[in-house]
Amino acid sequence: MAAYFNMETLKFLMFNVHKLEELLLNERYNAFDKESILLFLQSVADFSDQDLYPIFKEMDEKPAKFSDGKIHVHPKIKDILVKQGELGIIGASFDESLGGLQLPATVMHAAYFIMEAANNHIPGYAGLTAGAAHLISSFAETKYHEQYVPNMLSGQWSGTMCLSEPQAGSGLSDIKCSAKLTDDGTYRIKGHKIFISGGDHEYAGNIIHLLLARIEGAPAGTKGISLFIVPKYRILSDQTLENNDVITAGDFQKMGQRGYCTAHLVFGDNEDCTGYLVGEPNKGLSYMFQMMNDARIAVGRGGAAIASAAYYASLQYAQERQQGRRMLSGGRKDDAAGPTLIINHPDVRRMLFLQKAIYEGSLSLILQSSVYHDREISEKDNKKHWNLLLEFLTPITKTYPSEKGKLAVDNGLQILGGYGFCADFILQQYYRDIRIMSIYEGTTGIQSLDLLGRKVLMENGLVLKTMMAEMLSTISEGKKDERLMATAKELEDQLPMVEATLAHLIPIAMNGEPEKFVSDATLFMEAIGTIVVAWQWLKIGITASNALNSSDVSFSASMLKNKLHTMRFFYKYELGRNRSIFKIIQSDEVLTLAEDEAFPD
Amino acid sequence: MAAYFNMETLKFLMFNVHKLEELLLNERYNAFDKESILLFLQSVADFSDQDLYPIFKEMDEKPAKFSDGKIHVHPKIKDILVKQGELGIIGASFDESLGGLQLPATVMHAAYFIMEAANNHIPGYAGLTAGAAHLISSFAETKYHEQYVPNMLSGQWSGTMCLSEPQAGSGLSDIKCSAKLTDDGTYRIKGHKIFISGGDHEYAGNIIHLLLARIEGAPAGTKGISLFIVPKYRILSDQTLENNDVITAGDFQKMGQRGYCTAHLVFGDNEDCTGYLVGEPNKGLSYMFQMMNDARIAVGRGGAAIASAAYYASLQYAQERQQGRRMLSGGRKDDAAGPTLIINHPDVRRMLFLQKAIYEGSLSLILQSSVYHDREISEKDNKKHWNLLLEFLTPITKTYPSEKGKLAVDNGLQILGGYGFCADFILQQYYRDIRIMSIYEGTTGIQSLDLLGRKVLMENGLVLKTMMAEMLSTISEGKKDERLMATAKELEDQLPMVEATLAHLIPIAMNGEPEKFVSDATLFMEAIGTIVVAWQWLKIGITASNALNSSDVSFSASMLKNKLHTMRFFYKYELGRNRSIFKIIQSDEVLTLAEDEAFPD
Repeated sequence: MAAYFNMETLKFLMFNVHKLEELLLNERYNAFDKESILLFLQSVADFSDQDLYPIFKEMDEKPAKFSDGKIHVHPKIKDILVKQGELGIIGASFDESLGGLQLPATVMHAAYFIMEAANNHIPGYAGLTAGAAHLISSFAETKYHEQYVPNMLSGQWSGTMCLSEPQAGSGLSDIKCSAKLTDDGTYRIKGHKIFISGGDHEYAGNIIHLLLARIEGAPAGTKGISLFIVPKYRILSDQTLENNDVITAGDFQKMGQRGYCTAHLVFGDNEDCTGYLVGEPNKGLSYMFQMMNDARIAVGRGGAAIASAAYYASLQYAQERQQGRRMLSGGRKDDAAGPTLIINHPDVRRMLFLQKAIYEGSLSLILQSSVYHDREISEKDNKKHWNLLLEFLTPITKTYPSEKGKLAVDNGLQILGGYGFCADFILQQYYRDIRIMSIYEGTTGIQSLDLLGRKVLMENGLVLKTMMAEMLSTISEGKKDERLMATAKELEDQLPMVEATLAHLIPIAMNGEPEKFVSDATLFMEAIGTIVVAWQWLKIGITASNALNSSDVSFSASMLKNKLHTMRFFYKYELGRNRSIFKIIQSDEVLTLAEDEAFPD
Repeated sequence: MAAYFNMETLKFLMFNVHKLEELLLNERYNAFDKESILLFLQSVADFSDQDLYPIFKEMDEKPAKFSDGKIHVHPKIKDILVKQGELGIIGASFDESLGGLQLPATVMHAAYFIMEAANNHIPGYAGLTAGAAHLISSFAETKYHEQYVPNMLSGQWSGTMCLSEPQAGSGLSDIKCSAKLTDDGTYRIKGHKIFISGGDHEYAGNIIHLLLARIEGAPAGTKGISLFIVPKYRILSDQTLENNDVITAGDFQKMGQRGYCTAHLVFGDNEDCTGYLVGEPNKGLSYMFQMMNDARIAVGRGGAAIASAAYYASLQYAQERQQGRRMLSGGRKDDAAGPTLIINHPDVRRMLFLQKAIYEGSLSLILQSSVYHDREISEKDNKKHWNLLLEFLTPITKTYPSEKGKLAVDNGLQILGGYGFCADFILQQYYRDIRIMSIYEGTTGIQSLDLLGRKVLMENGLVLKTMMAEMLSTISEGKKDERLMATAKELEDQLPMVEATLAHLIPIAMNGEPEKFVSDATLFMEAIGTIVVAWQWLKIGITASNALNSSDVSFSASMLKNKLHTMRFFYKYELGRNRSIFKIIQSDEVLTLAEDEAFPD
């Protein structure tokens, strides 16, 4: 079996860096201990090895495809969904009362990370099903909980989120899909939805769409959007299922994630599509944001998982492939020694460390965000504190692994040279698959607007201040350790750059020039993302250094030293690029406004 | 017809920025004037519109494929090759005496740029044919010239370069393919060659392989490699063709450039493969370097061409697609105005300008290198001067458009959001196609070693000094123009950073630590590439500014202003990143040597 993730690193990040055992003390999670969680993750790893990884390449080569009014997916999907239900994966973080395991979301994310590293074309089916079920259980009337949630968590039924329409993608205010109240209190739904991941396939007994639509007479824009449960099959009073006028009009053939179907759905073309309102009218977008925020973490996780799999594939190649010679003094080639393994070439090592630094840093960031989420929902006090941190990190956790994950996989492919470009090697598939991550669930541009335009300004800067305090606490811990003093200082040196950048930007916002204010939001995201991941690496470094100093032998000394080395790599090569980026953002020269005299031509 | 390049920009770069008319004064080119060259390029553009672009998508969807011992390519390839011969494209830069047009290579590159922007899966066939014919005409005995060259330039026969073997890719010193002298003075060739672009297809009357092999008893390493002409079919004394024991063993299915076949060839499996020695024994690699240097410029050109095509595809989308709202003061959305074209969003404009800045800068760099080449071969004096400049620019001209072209296309895809990932839109094909460019003809790592490890040190630094003098001359011209003073100064400010970086690095080389010296060669390449393209943008700026100041109306004022604006964009967003990169290279911390205690794990 090919390596696509590293259980030791995952354990180290979860239990040592992010101190999961502290979280388990909270009442919500006290049915679990470290051992039971490791058993759960091992079962997910075994399942991934046996069922997911073996069909990864095949799912790309024989993509999900629309024909005869249906989307045909890989035949193993049926058993896989049921097995995910049996293993408790779909309901991992749900309340026990709903049939869930009531695990921390952190553990659920770790489980999906393993599955996605094995085969990123599959976990989306379960992930969206869980997200849809979570929306129902959080906001819909209780009667709908029992109608839908158990069948969804068991993997018998699927779920989706239906947002995009042909004219409304990034801009949800232009949603046209309509809902008309009927006498029985349900709604008639009518409209088109596109880019619906997992939107239709032959192996779900029912597909429960969580759909945004506009009730007749609702206000324009995002304030007139409501959320509906729209099942593919309506449940009749005798529990039998009846067609609900949801038609699959086609699919989208894609460059990557080709085994994961993407549907174009038509609702109510025969005026017979029933929708059930979730919560109050016109508040749909705020409910949907719960699912979207979870989905954003999940997309970042997908990026980190693909980057992990690509790293281990490149590492294996670099440890087996001989090419070229070591260099002797004067630059001569060491012909006497003959060909060397390519892992001995500095440029190949640089690319490997870059992959490792990005994927492990990304994974740590995902776990960090989910720990904040778990603390928010499981602790009695400080809920707002944890929520503010999660609010700040969400767009970054979505974007950093997606954007830098591309860079990591690109370097991974490069290590294989010409073979990297060939279908016989897996790197090219990772390269294609990961490209969707910076588009899914709000593009990088949208996330960057959220970070700079909303999160930084939110609550008069309290969100940012809370985040900075958190980082400063890690910095001050790092400064006490001789091994980490310089690293902690380098991170500390970044903070005045953030301040100077905001001191430049905020007056522009205050001055009534919002487009100018956000014009370099994506660069701001790039720099802040790197700082946040540098902070994660400092945490990893502190943990590794403490373990080296102690008599704890849970992890090998070489693994711990490699973590410290990779931390330094991240600081030199990635954080080292930040100063120039902040300078660019602070430039007074604005070149990208529509009102400019010059334009792209 | 979709726009994939801009003839006005190409003309402006060729005739105004790079002053092609001055070059035409040289005796070698005096059969041509501006008008005749523009007619030639227009014929290439018409041909590209009619014959190349229409089958671009189809060639990806139905890739070249090996079956029944043959590689099957798109059926239109036959006519296309002959038409390229008729139009004089294959022999564009060849001497008239050999049946060529004797055009400057600069014009030949412009012609290929147009064709590659239209369909990058096709021009390689003609390009390698010309390269192989050029090797024959430069180094082989005269009798071979007439046997092969005319049929190759007419498009009846194809040519290839056969370097890589399963165990020898980047490391050519491990070539095993063997050649044994026979009584008639020819050689028996035996061995495998892989990754042979255009290596076999059904529409060439003959395929002339220029192949590296080792004559029995030759020294080990690169000093024992000889160059051979190995035709697929031997030419008998009565001019009929006879099988030459060249077998196609298979092909490589790839992520991109799928219409351009890549073969695995077996030579002499039946002990009946004849090779004809080119030049002297054991000097093969030095001859092949002529073809490789030309091919490196050509690969950069391919990157620039794909980036051009991607730019115009994204630009068109951004000018047609409405999404979201403009922002009003306070960050509110302008709902009254309704949806806006996405080209009005600053982040989309940023991505478009980034694409434009990279592709036009890359194209200018390719023309710059080829002007140096043309000056070297057509002028009586200063040959060495032009050669030194070309030597320095070759690895950069190969690498910058390949690496930054990826970034440009990545941004282009992002502009389309979810549609960018879908097979119905062309961006994803550009994204896959361009990925090969940083691998072809020496990976980015190899080019970077060439730049830092060879070119910078060559002739005691004379190459670098000559290059710097050339830039300083542009800088001093720029400083005289008020519009460009700040830009010229920014470029000037880069030069001490280069000096400081080399002052840090060269003592390491002198100190007998060659691997440490080159360990950040790829970052050095990144920074120097950006400087060189910034220099091209300053040249473009000077030319645009002069045109705006003059009464010359050959180009629209808006186009000229857009050039100046894009120049500023490049300086702010791309050159602005360099300072940090130089700092990283100057760091004393070395983290990528094989002797380190820590390692990727």
